[in-house]
Amino acid sequence: MAKQTLHIVKIGGNIINNESELNSFLKDFSALEGLKILVHGGGKRASEIASEMGLQPKMVNGRRVTDEANLEVVTMVYAGLLNKNITAILQHNDCNALGLSGVDANCIVAHKRIVKGIDYGFAGDVDSVNSEFINALLQHKVTPVFCAITHNKNGQLLNTNADTIASEVAIAMSNLFDVQLNYVFELKGVLEHIEDENSVISKINLNKYEKLVEQGIISEGMIPKLHNCFNCLQKGVQKVKIGNASLIKGTNELHTTLSLE
Amino acid sequence: MAKQTLHIVKIGGNIINNESELNSFLKDFSALEGLKILVHGGGKRASEIASEMGLQPKMVNGRRVTDEANLEVVTMVYAGLLNKNITAILQHNDCNALGLSGVDANCIVAHKRIVKGIDYGFAGDVDSVNSEFINALLQHKVTPVFCAITHNKNGQLLNTNADTIASEVAIAMSNLFDVQLNYVFELKGVLEHIEDENSVISKINLNKYEKLVEQGIISEGMIPKLHNCFNCLQKGVQKVKIGNASLIKGTNELHTTLSLE
Repeated sequence: MAKQTLHIVKIGGNIINNESELNSFLKDFSALEGLKILVHGGGKRASEIASEMGLQPKMVNGRRVTDEANLEVVTMVYAGLLNKNITAILQHNDCNALGLSGVDANCIVAHKRIVKGIDYGFAGDVDSVNSEFINALLQHKVTPVFCAITHNKNGQLLNTNADTIASEVAIAMSNLFDVQLNYVFELKGVLEHIEDENSVISKINLNKYEKLVEQGIISEGMIPKLHNCFNCLQKGVQKVKIGNASLIKGTNELHTTLSLE
Repeated sequence: MAKQTLHIVKIGGNIINNESELNSFLKDFSALEGLKILVHGGGKRASEIASEMGLQPKMVNGRRVTDEANLEVVTMVYAGLLNKNITAILQHNDCNALGLSGVDANCIVAHKRIVKGIDYGFAGDVDSVNSEFINALLQHKVTPVFCAITHNKNGQLLNTNADTIASEVAIAMSNLFDVQLNYVFELKGVLEHIEDENSVISKINLNKYEKLVEQGIISEGMIPKLHNCFNCLQKGVQKVKIGNASLIKGTNELHTTLSLE
């Protein structure tokens, strides 16, 4: 029997920072038919509040680390302010949203990241996703809304990359569903020429991806983003798309579709 | 058929402000057998953060009002920082907790309070509780953990009294369960002599309550607290107890039990 389709949509700070864009996106997301999950990143409000509280970004070897004070801020802003406001707007649009962190019902367990002796503070890498409970919510006509906070099951909260949350949830749910993962960001898709916003490469397979990296067309921040997407496809996610907020409208807007072959 | 028992426990700032007391309480709460719900109030961290962000408490006619900036702080602290930390500690104690605000899955809908021309800002009075969804969570062996943030279903978050959240949830769930509501606060119970912490009145019925108010033994803040408790009993809650953190240990510690007759 064909699996049911599940849409997982990840949005980042660029939409969250703009109230009218966020409202418009959440209206479109609410109108999306069928089972769906939203994953949201942070936004500039976390940095503003950290700054109002007199905190400085903490860097080690040029990488940002999440110290205890900054963990407190991201927990407040991601799991509290953003998650509850986004959920309230979805409820207003008659989408039966439920805001979640990885802590809740043990949805996402992670461990504290330590790489080659660098302690990234309270940054978490995902170990497991409670797909059984997430499925129970979906069957109950609830739309989970995940923020990027997880825990280690020993009482410690952890700050986790929102792209990773989306991909780990997508991989875990792909056992049960035909998962369509959509990464919404500020561009219309992966661009052939970075200065031309309409030079969207509409389809990229694994072979083409490797060539585009070699040619330097895909570089910097897009490399981990696409690496993450291909990882999802290799682990069972049916389809991955990258584009701007119009991606979920169902109209035939420009975007990039990734596939293995 | 006799209804199944559901324990609803409300804790306030006095426990939340003390890390070791909170940990100890959450361990006891985790050990409590059967179906249960936790409701938590705020704590001094919300005031500290408001102050760090340069906010002043806003008063109108001597009453505190929740302006937009303070709503942002309580949303962050109650629904983010406190709710997720409490949930993480419960998960560590193998209690399958799920942190919720009234927004999530439309659990608690409220309206903005306006009394005799005084606008209390974003303070919410409860209209309805989604007992069907809360029951679905309980049947799924999940322990809901409510913070005192609700919404009006039109996208607006509201700050709501945690005692009220506990009583409204208790009343709504009493259709389905034999509800035992426990208010945990800083005293061992309702005191006969305010200066003697052991002068706990062990049983108070409605008749005795009215006499104690007449005599001035119950006064000030205890009046709305007890009024709220008797309201619960009149609307179907099976039992209401008031006491300190030892209340939920099941040992025979001093506390006050309220009953109608």
